[in-house]
Amino acid sequence: MSVMTKGDQTKEMILHQAAQVFNRRGFFGSAMSDIMDVTGLEKGGIYNHFTSKEDLALQAFDYAVDVLRQEIKNATADKKNAADRLIGLIGFYQRAAEGYPFPGGCPVMNTAIEADDTQPALCERAKAAMAEWHQFIRRIIQRGKEKGEIKAEVDGEMLASVFISVMEGAIMQSRLYGNLRPMNRAVEYLTGYLEREVRA
Amino acid sequence: MSVMTKGDQTKEMILHQAAQVFNRRGFFGSAMSDIMDVTGLEKGGIYNHFTSKEDLALQAFDYAVDVLRQEIKNATADKKNAADRLIGLIGFYQRAAEGYPFPGGCPVMNTAIEADDTQPALCERAKAAMAEWHQFIRRIIQRGKEKGEIKAEVDGEMLASVFISVMEGAIMQSRLYGNLRPMNRAVEYLTGYLEREVRA
Repeated sequence: MSVMTKGDQTKEMILHQAAQVFNRRGFFGSAMSDIMDVTGLEKGGIYNHFTSKEDLALQAFDYAVDVLRQEIKNATADKKNAADRLIGLIGFYQRAAEGYPFPGGCPVMNTAIEADDTQPALCERAKAAMAEWHQFIRRIIQRGKEKGEIKAEVDGEMLASVFISVMEGAIMQSRLYGNLRPMNRAVEYLTGYLEREVRA
Repeated sequence: MSVMTKGDQTKEMILHQAAQVFNRRGFFGSAMSDIMDVTGLEKGGIYNHFTSKEDLALQAFDYAVDVLRQEIKNATADKKNAADRLIGLIGFYQRAAEGYPFPGGCPVMNTAIEADDTQPALCERAKAAMAEWHQFIRRIIQRGKEKGEIKAEVDGEMLASVFISVMEGAIMQSRLYGNLRPMNRAVEYLTGYLEREVRA
């Protein structure tokens, strides 16, 4: 049983709400008044836990990445075969396009796009999160090759990079058009590719 | 010979500079003082031509899309075969990742990501630009099929959508990491795919 003080619970609630707001509106598009609205707290109640909007944004980003890590774990946990694990990750992206666990698309891409020239600390966080994600996919491919579940000729570096490109590009388009067609096409394409060219 | 008044020239210069600033820093991340810095104009000199920051952003977006249209035309102009035209468009994306014609990545994606929940007018512009781009690629595929340059079994809707997803996702990653590896992998992958599965 985890013991959370009332202060911890409040901080967690603020992070949860702020992660949603920042993901939809962005760092610059979100005002502290937006965070006050969704949390029902006064400014002072928020600044009890965070030193600045930037501090809140950094911690909300870390919170969002923790949630994504858990979703990724869930998407692959019951799958032993590497190809099935990759297909599980497609499902993770599909749910992301549907607004789960965060409305507003992929928090890492959103932060990457917004922060690159303006918020170096946030940008570093996004870079580390994307690199971890890339490594996670590479490791599945590598182990799958070792266990004979993935074709030996598959270039893991290339597959991980293209996998992420297709899925991130599809989330962006689905968000923009407000419908799931681009994501559904990417899912169909990538699933077919994995079954034909990747699965041993 | 085009006749441009001094006022027109100033407006064009502001749009050119503003398109670069907005693409790097975003709508919210850019202040009018940034536009003043890069144009060397006082606030009044800018507001002579634009009614507001939003008006400037909308016109700068339209300007950026005009420049992209010209780049796309250049990337395909000397190519008759539909498969070669698609490969020309890969080159267009590759140059975009290198910061040409705009530093800061793809203006349409950047605007799509930033504007979706905050700037409906900008978001509509981004949606229209993306839809036009999708249609342009679809038309190349359709004509290529009619002329026997593209395999009959190619699903044009799917190919156009996945083409854009891969390339936009790759630009985002290349921008984030600050290197061209994700884009280079996407180029290699997509070129191979077009040669093997698409070219008749």
